[in-house]
Amino acid sequence: MRIAIVGGTGDFGQGIAVRLGAHTDHELTIGSRTAEKAVDAAAAYCEIIDYRSTESISGASNDRAVSTAEIAILAVPPFHIRDTVRGLSEQLKETTLVTPAVGLAKDETGFHYRPPDEGSVTELVADVAPDETPVVGAFHNLPAGKLADLETDLDVDTLVVGNDPDARGRVASLAEEIEGITAYEAGPITNASEIEGITPLLINLARYNEQLQDVGARFC
Amino acid sequence: MRIAIVGGTGDFGQGIAVRLGAHTDHELTIGSRTAEKAVDAAAAYCEIIDYRSTESISGASNDRAVSTAEIAILAVPPFHIRDTVRGLSEQLKETTLVTPAVGLAKDETGFHYRPPDEGSVTELVADVAPDETPVVGAFHNLPAGKLADLETDLDVDTLVVGNDPDARGRVASLAEEIEGITAYEAGPITNASEIEGITPLLINLARYNEQLQDVGARFC
Repeated sequence: MRIAIVGGTGDFGQGIAVRLGAHTDHELTIGSRTAEKAVDAAAAYCEIIDYRSTESISGASNDRAVSTAEIAILAVPPFHIRDTVRGLSEQLKETTLVTPAVGLAKDETGFHYRPPDEGSVTELVADVAPDETPVVGAFHNLPAGKLADLETDLDVDTLVVGNDPDARGRVASLAEEIEGITAYEAGPITNASEIEGITPLLINLARYNEQLQDVGARFC
Repeated sequence: MRIAIVGGTGDFGQGIAVRLGAHTDHELTIGSRTAEKAVDAAAAYCEIIDYRSTESISGASNDRAVSTAEIAILAVPPFHIRDTVRGLSEQLKETTLVTPAVGLAKDETGFHYRPPDEGSVTELVADVAPDETPVVGAFHNLPAGKLADLETDLDVDTLVVGNDPDARGRVASLAEEIEGITAYEAGPITNASEIEGITPLLINLARYNEQLQDVGARFC
């Protein structure tokens, strides 16, 4: 399967790219606003994974990366999501669009969940994406540092929401291909808000508990 | 230590009472609006725990239960919280007041988090409680059925918020006395909202995943 990681040169982009590259055999395209930056990142990720499972990791502009992908993961900061999705509307078509982003604010007491007016980032993406593009929320609560460090075994859950059950199942299956990630479906995108809200909580837990640095959540 | 469980005749009240009764040696008083109902519940809980650790489980009216307690747990539905805390303001004084309640709404897609105007139920309780009463949010995301069934081993985390670090620590220590519960502190009560929001998510997970019935959360 061809997977695009839109804005895949940042921390989360690197984490998800190296895990998918090391644990699955899908063809990955790292996307960036400038193709050159994406090509450099792709080369760096290939070195990190030392040519394990993946067929290939290449780099391209975001629109080119998305145009041939079956699944596109939006690894862009929440405040760029709206414009990024709008800018890709020609290329997206029936590509399953996956959003892991979360709206956060920080004050002296900690991080707080600040969803957009649409109710959640997932719902915002669904609002902006073309009608024929299935939107799925997933990968929200993964520990970014551990994700990027292939020496660390993961043992975390990811919750998957989407209004199209097939697309939701496709993304859940992809997530489960990464060793140490268990995916659970959590229904339509109206259920995204409570999932996105866990991310600031995980950051707060790291602040108040030495033993909870860069943790994820498990449900059991 | 004397612990009151306000409104302790309901499902959550029973769960937390039998766990505290079976795993700790604290003196428990079950509170209810009518003393008679509380006395009956206390007798039933004594039978369930078969006189394990606890010194005693007695029943009393809510205000009488609270008046001698060092810790009072508010096991009342969220829509009764405001009036219940107001009605206990004479008795509370420096009793540490623990709130596990969560505001929920249900529609055809699932359960959703609906906090009160104060931002969270924990902040609502702090708003209504007397100034000298330390308010702590805890026990929000425990699986109610498993909690009440002493044959089931627990393996869940509870997150504890409060503006008074001593009170927060006291409640975290109490929670950890229950076998299978790990307590983590999560800072001031402004961080309560994201914790309370996990409860509807857990209910949604049960709806969409056969293997996730009555689960809690773990952070690791």
